[in-house]
Amino acid sequence: MAGILFGVGVGPGDPELMTLKAVRVIRENDVIAAPGDDVRETVAYKIAVQAVPELAEKELLPIRMPMVMDKEEQKKNHRLGAKQIENVLDQGKNVVFITLGDSTIYSTFSYLQEIVEADGYETRLVSGIPSFCAAAAKLNIPLTEWQEQLHVIPARQNLKAKLDQPGTYVLMKSGSRMAQTKKLLAESGKKVRMVENCGMPDEKIYGSLDEIPDNAGYFSLIIAKEL
Amino acid sequence: MAGILFGVGVGPGDPELMTLKAVRVIRENDVIAAPGDDVRETVAYKIAVQAVPELAEKELLPIRMPMVMDKEEQKKNHRLGAKQIENVLDQGKNVVFITLGDSTIYSTFSYLQEIVEADGYETRLVSGIPSFCAAAAKLNIPLTEWQEQLHVIPARQNLKAKLDQPGTYVLMKSGSRMAQTKKLLAESGKKVRMVENCGMPDEKIYGSLDEIPDNAGYFSLIIAKEL
Repeated sequence: MAGILFGVGVGPGDPELMTLKAVRVIRENDVIAAPGDDVRETVAYKIAVQAVPELAEKELLPIRMPMVMDKEEQKKNHRLGAKQIENVLDQGKNVVFITLGDSTIYSTFSYLQEIVEADGYETRLVSGIPSFCAAAAKLNIPLTEWQEQLHVIPARQNLKAKLDQPGTYVLMKSGSRMAQTKKLLAESGKKVRMVENCGMPDEKIYGSLDEIPDNAGYFSLIIAKEL
Repeated sequence: MAGILFGVGVGPGDPELMTLKAVRVIRENDVIAAPGDDVRETVAYKIAVQAVPELAEKELLPIRMPMVMDKEEQKKNHRLGAKQIENVLDQGKNVVFITLGDSTIYSTFSYLQEIVEADGYETRLVSGIPSFCAAAAKLNIPLTEWQEQLHVIPARQNLKAKLDQPGTYVLMKSGSRMAQTKKLLAESGKKVRMVENCGMPDEKIYGSLDEIPDNAGYFSLIIAKEL
């Protein structure tokens, strides 16, 4: 019988933000996959190994998923990655693919899952803490209260979105083109805060729009709330 | 020295979806608060006690926070609840307030935190898995991929929102006025799925708009995705 492919979210950085289920699923299985040329160099591995030290002894399966903009090349890489995973599943072994944050939100796992599922294998998802929840907790503020809406906008959409909906906006990975993003935020009239590298050793908190530098890092998460 | 008030998310239902940090913070502290007349009867307690059995031996602090629509009465209840908590903090003990899902998303804790913080006490937040992440994992689908936006709309806003933004919509607690909500969803042209009582013994999954009954329960979470 073929193995099962698990997509496991390890949360945004602090290993203590991993769920009991994520820890158990990693512990109980022998083959751990992650996106990259070297699993040990991935952020997801570095988080998970702190909570599950025996991960260091497991069989590691690196899945090459470089960030390319060409859709056809992306698809080719995803097919190759899916094939690598299916080779292991065919041996009757489960594969646990670890992914940053939650496994259902902007995860590279989704592409692999779709292919592997379509090829007739069983797949399952294990939730992780999304970065925006951890960032709000770090800022010690609610993301949404009472009847407020929540809008999460990924990096490349930041500048197209108008930020004119009611409620809270989360801008993910807003490091690039920050000057333009700051202009949009100023126009929104919302209260802006930012966390750079949330849960990492070099984490940095910005309490207002004025404090945010134009050259912030890639893993910058902005929370813009109604006043 | 006064104690610290923690707001701890226990996730949406499955005790295995609690984080290592939530488990530790509950375990390390003696006074556990929850909203309701009887802490043992709250959903948050019933989840947490399965992962931390020693919770049953701890001092339990029920905070009365009835669902009332009158803003003044709400505020009065929140002040009373904050006072109860501050009385314990003044004894130098920490208070751990447990809350369903994540502690920054539509949590009753936010009201208490604001008051207790303004009164000069230290407060901290511990993240939990939001219900919409667990629901997507249960449906075995991504919430958002690539450059999709995510829009979370709480119950009472469901019928005012137009659902005309690109990306994925999550409608929380959409049980009431489901017939009207279904009409809106049909007009949106998105692919609709629903999970009722996610992670609970009576959990139920609906794979399409047509399957969703007009009389679904209060804890119904709808995910509407772009086709």
